[in-house]
Amino acid sequence: MEGEMSLTATKSQAQTKARAFATASADRFLSELIRFVRFPSVSAQPQHADDVKRCAAWLARHLQSIGLENVTVTPTARHPIVCANWRHARGQPTVLLYGHYDVQPVDPLSEWRSPPFDPVVRGENLFGRGASDDKGQLFAHLKALESCLRGAGGLPVNVVCLFEGEEEIGSTNLARFLTGARDDLAADVAVISDTRMLGANRPAITYGLRGALSMELEVRGPGTDLHSGNFGGAIHNPLQALCEMLAELHGADQRVTIPGFYDRVRNISRNERAYMARHGPSDREVIEDAQAGKGWGEPGLTLYERIAVRPALTINGLGGGYQGPGAKAVIPSRATAKLNFRLVPDQDPKEIEQLFRAFMVKIAPPAVRVAVRAQAGAKPAVIDPKHPAIRAAARAYRAGFGASPVLLRSGGTIPVVSMFQESLGIPTILMGFALPDDSLHGPNEKFHLPVFRKAIRTSIAFLHELARPESPFVSAANRMAAFALPGADI
Amino acid sequence: MEGEMSLTATKSQAQTKARAFATASADRFLSELIRFVRFPSVSAQPQHADDVKRCAAWLARHLQSIGLENVTVTPTARHPIVCANWRHARGQPTVLLYGHYDVQPVDPLSEWRSPPFDPVVRGENLFGRGASDDKGQLFAHLKALESCLRGAGGLPVNVVCLFEGEEEIGSTNLARFLTGARDDLAADVAVISDTRMLGANRPAITYGLRGALSMELEVRGPGTDLHSGNFGGAIHNPLQALCEMLAELHGADQRVTIPGFYDRVRNISRNERAYMARHGPSDREVIEDAQAGKGWGEPGLTLYERIAVRPALTINGLGGGYQGPGAKAVIPSRATAKLNFRLVPDQDPKEIEQLFRAFMVKIAPPAVRVAVRAQAGAKPAVIDPKHPAIRAAARAYRAGFGASPVLLRSGGTIPVVSMFQESLGIPTILMGFALPDDSLHGPNEKFHLPVFRKAIRTSIAFLHELARPESPFVSAANRMAAFALPGADI
Repeated sequence: MEGEMSLTATKSQAQTKARAFATASADRFLSELIRFVRFPSVSAQPQHADDVKRCAAWLARHLQSIGLENVTVTPTARHPIVCANWRHARGQPTVLLYGHYDVQPVDPLSEWRSPPFDPVVRGENLFGRGASDDKGQLFAHLKALESCLRGAGGLPVNVVCLFEGEEEIGSTNLARFLTGARDDLAADVAVISDTRMLGANRPAITYGLRGALSMELEVRGPGTDLHSGNFGGAIHNPLQALCEMLAELHGADQRVTIPGFYDRVRNISRNERAYMARHGPSDREVIEDAQAGKGWGEPGLTLYERIAVRPALTINGLGGGYQGPGAKAVIPSRATAKLNFRLVPDQDPKEIEQLFRAFMVKIAPPAVRVAVRAQAGAKPAVIDPKHPAIRAAARAYRAGFGASPVLLRSGGTIPVVSMFQESLGIPTILMGFALPDDSLHGPNEKFHLPVFRKAIRTSIAFLHELARPESPFVSAANRMAAFALPGADI
Repeated sequence: MEGEMSLTATKSQAQTKARAFATASADRFLSELIRFVRFPSVSAQPQHADDVKRCAAWLARHLQSIGLENVTVTPTARHPIVCANWRHARGQPTVLLYGHYDVQPVDPLSEWRSPPFDPVVRGENLFGRGASDDKGQLFAHLKALESCLRGAGGLPVNVVCLFEGEEEIGSTNLARFLTGARDDLAADVAVISDTRMLGANRPAITYGLRGALSMELEVRGPGTDLHSGNFGGAIHNPLQALCEMLAELHGADQRVTIPGFYDRVRNISRNERAYMARHGPSDREVIEDAQAGKGWGEPGLTLYERIAVRPALTINGLGGGYQGPGAKAVIPSRATAKLNFRLVPDQDPKEIEQLFRAFMVKIAPPAVRVAVRAQAGAKPAVIDPKHPAIRAAARAYRAGFGASPVLLRSGGTIPVVSMFQESLGIPTILMGFALPDDSLHGPNEKFHLPVFRKAIRTSIAFLHELARPESPFVSAANRMAAFALPGADI
């Protein structure tokens, strides 16, 4: 009994030391994060390919400097993958920490209050593209690892880091890398922080993600741009045909009209629905977060349900014709739209792509030609809320934030979660640190600095919580204290 | 009798001398036109404001150099108006020659085979933005004036020149100028060359033009751009709302659905319809000109009828969201469309604007806000085909091209035609020299050089034909020879 107590005490002392290190280093941690956000690592835009590369190199050097080992930067067909590990916690489980160092494009640039890649602190927030999604969240874990390694002399569990540069463009090259690096990445559980909390003091663990599918639709008409006076009314206009086709994608009930689209949508249980109503964001909160006047969508569902457990189709961009100042009387020869599906279990991106293609071919007017291109697909994912690592994460949140987390389903997509399940056979714990008003993907993205500091403490606690509960060194009392998640019967 | 014969002979000799001057100067005329086309006088784009100004100054110097008098460059709120005259043909009528030196924007730039403002001759054509619309056509008249003034010592009629720099943006400042300069511009008839022939050897006089109205529609949704994963399905998307609104503007019968839109559309007579079928472009020709696979539009009408005597509504540009490479999962806060109406007698742009606004307000979904902006309006115009100046023009074409012109209605708009009717009380003769494949407003615009040379000869002949037929110096035989237009009973 004495040995058990002293080892538990040692673990607790190590955590205390790591927390103290983090507290003492807060200013330096922030200035390092600012350096990280300064890289314009926009994965979608070819002109930023070098910036993405430089960001990966910086990240690799940083991993080395905080005491991680076997740091590698692996080139892919597009953007490199950065890995590192620390495997000296003999007999302990291994955590795979995933994050992405690439960011979304910045347009509309004119709506940023400060330049997106010149990060600046205003009030309690750090503003900059990627500050929250995902550099800030990823960095909280790195600073937790550093606090353990340098403040307490080691990690309580084994850790593998995997940071990619293509998350915002669909993680195209990651699946192949995972297959090839299966042995190096061997782990018991993955952790990702790339999801949202409900508020600065309302932590959340995400147990469901929507899948995604990005498509491009192109409509071609006349062989050249035409004068709309000389031909208007007699030659079909690709812009009009595009609008009419896009308008047919939703019915008057605001449901997607593609035949078969809802066939595989899984109904959620009464229990889960009740849990979502009790703990998830209210309609009012969603509308406020969106700065919208009112909600929209499928009837008979809350806004949170529409976002989290129902699929959606959004138009993300329209192009074609003249968009400069003034007018240009033109019937353009082509028009394009960018579209994004969000999918829920058991929809499959490949099948949805086929249904969409068939529908577009069916409704295309005879006077134009239509091309459909798929850009990236990711499967939806749901993690069993009863998994012990979710319970460990819940205890860690209580230590870091002083508040119990709720279980959430997110409307977003993290393609790697289903890949981890399929390639590595491990579940992923989604410990999000983004706030609803962080403006992810929008102008003036920001990261809440009190959350940054609490996230570091939560990550430190999580690493210690993951140390095997079945270990003879952990007391029965501690095992019983396993945090009871509210409504965990979902 | 002898005096009559000799004076007629003198007139004929003058015309012969002018034609000889034009023939001898052909190479110089072309190199001057190239210099004219080189100015990027794009009126719609603020960054070209100085280019428009420099082009006006060059044109003014050119008018001076060929012997025109009282040359002025009058600034307006936007682009200057260039005027000149020659009023030494005592007792003869006065012709107002109108043209525009501004040009359309050049996008899509990537589709030009040679830079739009580096004009180049390939085969029988001069390629460059504005080569045909309207610099080349305007220039043919200037070279005719020069040929008379320098080759024959004077003009057979009085001439006033009026060249504006805002035709492509709706001639916004011209109406006010016309009112103020009514006395200086006093004339018996106006002539404009800014319309089309049916082919290089198939001249045409245009007697009808559609009116125009340019509108901008803006749809606003959430206060900021949103992540389409985190909000897709629960917050309305301005791009989707825009597409759905635009899709409602045409019915399944391809007619415009705005209530009241067709109320004032004048039906054409059986005679005119028959004339149009006999002399106008066939469906096949329209489709070929458009490089389209097939026609489109209101049922029960030829394509030429749809273009010329029926109104149309075209979408000229769509904007909003992400349009760069790859994907961006965004619900943008706003989306815009540029629209262009073409109107026929007796539709009124102001009334159509009101009908459109009311319809947009009516169909706007409740979850978005809608703004409508009108950019420019012009009334439709029809000129009596029996007007003596039209007959004079027909004789001139026969002299210049060796072929009789047909009478056409155009789907295009020349705002100044209705202004001339209202402000100056004079009809306009539309002697177009553009070919159907000149790619007006499109990439690779060009002007056919044999047409340029024949247009100069036609203009010389027209000036001589306009010399009063009721003059005692013109023989009765000549009066009787008045060219009988085919099917001029329309």
